[in-house]
Amino acid sequence: MASQELIRKLEETIENVPDFPIPGIQFKDISPIFLNPKLYEAVIEDLVAFSKGKVDAVCGIESRGYLFGIAIAVALEVPFILIRKKGKLPPATVSEKYDLEYGSAEIETREGQIKKGQRVLIHDDLLATGGTTEAAAKLVEKQGAKVAQFSFLIGLTDLKGDEKLKKFDAEIYHILNY
Amino acid sequence: MASQELIRKLEETIENVPDFPIPGIQFKDISPIFLNPKLYEAVIEDLVAFSKGKVDAVCGIESRGYLFGIAIAVALEVPFILIRKKGKLPPATVSEKYDLEYGSAEIETREGQIKKGQRVLIHDDLLATGGTTEAAAKLVEKQGAKVAQFSFLIGLTDLKGDEKLKKFDAEIYHILNY
Repeated sequence: MASQELIRKLEETIENVPDFPIPGIQFKDISPIFLNPKLYEAVIEDLVAFSKGKVDAVCGIESRGYLFGIAIAVALEVPFILIRKKGKLPPATVSEKYDLEYGSAEIETREGQIKKGQRVLIHDDLLATGGTTEAAAKLVEKQGAKVAQFSFLIGLTDLKGDEKLKKFDAEIYHILNY
Repeated sequence: MASQELIRKLEETIENVPDFPIPGIQFKDISPIFLNPKLYEAVIEDLVAFSKGKVDAVCGIESRGYLFGIAIAVALEVPFILIRKKGKLPPATVSEKYDLEYGSAEIETREGQIKKGQRVLIHDDLLATGGTTEAAAKLVEKQGAKVAQFSFLIGLTDLKGDEKLKKFDAEIYHILNY
């Protein structure tokens, strides 16, 4: 959906940092996008076009998922719901645990912010193996809402995150594929 | 600067949660603001009015400082610089350590994103004792920029964060005082 010009500009702007956070991994640093408000707005416009008319709420995953997620929700004029790491939101919360390579993690929303029957967009900056996103989708669905869409700035296609998300029968969009 | 109506609406919306994260503390949960895009936009309008024409860049402190900070920067058409907890941004970074009640913490920006001579707004959602904000200001000034303004949604005046920030000779604004 994104124009070739937007894709080219993003590829020029995102910085590839070798061996971070561990040797062998090439980190995609999206922080330079936020130095350029016009480019940021073009990203938002593209992500909003994907979701327009299709969702009743947006969930953003802490913390980089907030940077685009809040602007998508405001442009769509729908609620934005914070998904946070366990322990940061006050009670009552609804939480979902998931496995990491070593150990496990847990994410939460405040209880009552996601409404039964809502069509929800789950947004994050980057889709890797999809573990966190899958947990976010389970967190949404256990509250009686439907995950209608997933959107990301970047998808790392080799890590097969898309396959992990297939079971939710939702649209998946990433502006850039690496 | 904020209208009485905006203040009243925010006070109705922010949830006071007793004894979180520890007994005796009353937590201010701002997450309900993001459920209401019109209210969010009114907050941004107010924070933008405070900073219009006065800054060349906005720094937002992870993670709730991103929720308003990015929209302030985009409205002002200036760069937004992520201040993150240590270890999340790839090298090269510039960092600043500060003391917590128990132990210490460290925050970082990517090197080169803050430019010498820039007038910078440091934004976060809440000013408490001011420890993190003071470290953010030192981080900005050690890179040759000038902290021109601080803005917050909430200031907890009993904790005297304003006094800790006085040395930077910058304007300080919080929409709400508790």
